[in-house]
Amino acid sequence: MDAHLCTPLGFLETPFPDKFGIPRQPGLAPHAVGTLRLQAPFDRPEAVRGLEAFSHVWLTWVFHECQGKWQPTVRPPRLGGNTRVGVFASRSPFRPNGLGLSLVELAGVDTTDGVVLRFRGVDLVDGTPILDVKPYLPYCEALPEAKGGYVDGAPPRLEVRWTEAARADLKGLRRRELKALVEEVLAQDPRPAYSEDPERVFGLRLFDRDVKWRVADGVAWVVGLPPFEPREDRR
Amino acid sequence: MDAHLCTPLGFLETPFPDKFGIPRQPGLAPHAVGTLRLQAPFDRPEAVRGLEAFSHVWLTWVFHECQGKWQPTVRPPRLGGNTRVGVFASRSPFRPNGLGLSLVELAGVDTTDGVVLRFRGVDLVDGTPILDVKPYLPYCEALPEAKGGYVDGAPPRLEVRWTEAARADLKGLRRRELKALVEEVLAQDPRPAYSEDPERVFGLRLFDRDVKWRVADGVAWVVGLPPFEPREDRR
Repeated sequence: MDAHLCTPLGFLETPFPDKFGIPRQPGLAPHAVGTLRLQAPFDRPEAVRGLEAFSHVWLTWVFHECQGKWQPTVRPPRLGGNTRVGVFASRSPFRPNGLGLSLVELAGVDTTDGVVLRFRGVDLVDGTPILDVKPYLPYCEALPEAKGGYVDGAPPRLEVRWTEAARADLKGLRRRELKALVEEVLAQDPRPAYSEDPERVFGLRLFDRDVKWRVADGVAWVVGLPPFEPREDRR
Repeated sequence: MDAHLCTPLGFLETPFPDKFGIPRQPGLAPHAVGTLRLQAPFDRPEAVRGLEAFSHVWLTWVFHECQGKWQPTVRPPRLGGNTRVGVFASRSPFRPNGLGLSLVELAGVDTTDGVVLRFRGVDLVDGTPILDVKPYLPYCEALPEAKGGYVDGAPPRLEVRWTEAARADLKGLRRRELKALVEEVLAQDPRPAYSEDPERVFGLRLFDRDVKWRVADGVAWVVGLPPFEPREDRR
């Protein structure tokens, strides 16, 4: 076998239009809900029969924004971005075959019109091609005693606070889960490495909002939540 | 993105020449050791730097013997082989894109001549194409409280005993791990469903041996371990 061809089951809708700011592993932002509509010929209701009895599923997917760019070594954010490890000792996108793997919570199975699956805790950019959905098997896949190398426990979390101006932007929001999602995403400290300037304001998109924040004394301050203004360099 | 093309990193050498008898999940037979030699251009020693600090890794691979034959529903062995569930509620090979996922123990990383990885607890047929190797992250992937649907705990195990004749076949064996491997594999009760005849002798291959056994009163009796005799219908 020289090559193996895969066809997406569908494309995941998520709150993350851009890669920047996405939690670095699934489950860190439970309010990040992803929706997958299976496309033909995979949209058969019987193909998900019994899935709702599992609380968690594996998604196998394609790092479609990084295709064809594998590197033998990468610099994981967890090592501060300045230490190289082998790509196979990482979950980096810059891997041969560009396959991602995410454990997500199954939030809903809807077969009233085709097949629509909902997941909580997704860490994927909007539009990610999904190649497989598999049930999580706790009896053989939950190994709390396993050694996790340099990935030693969950990453530290920042406290998140809202300025008055940012609070005002929350009023009248159509998406009620956005406040909790902003807090979960910013708690992960998505700043690029070496960006310690407490005055510097960063931006990341969630749905159609531009989340503006800065970090000072270990606290992430949300300073605004304006609607997203398309820029020339974005699609 | 209409399709995604994957190239094997290499092909896993395992003790299982045939699908029949392979443990149905990884980790059930720790003496099942698999060896993966990365092929060019992936055989770069630096690509596995740091991997040895992880005790377990994910293998993403291709069900290459079942390609192109997906079915909306399947009959999992765990439900006795007579109840249908959706293919996405199973780990069946008969899934769109034919991708497998196995959590295995990392037993060795050898970069003295190319890159050779050794794994314990493999559940893959000899020659399986491997598409990815990723570290297991216990902090976000060990969820012992997850609900496992109809896969409720490890499968029951049979007691395994050896007849005198089978014991004699063990003498002078080159592979010392074979006795333990036979016991681990037969304890999983790999008989096809509805094969309750206590006199019926089954056979499965491990390496170059034909393991002959029968099951009576809940005990798997090993009755012989002759060298494998190639048959016309095998490659």
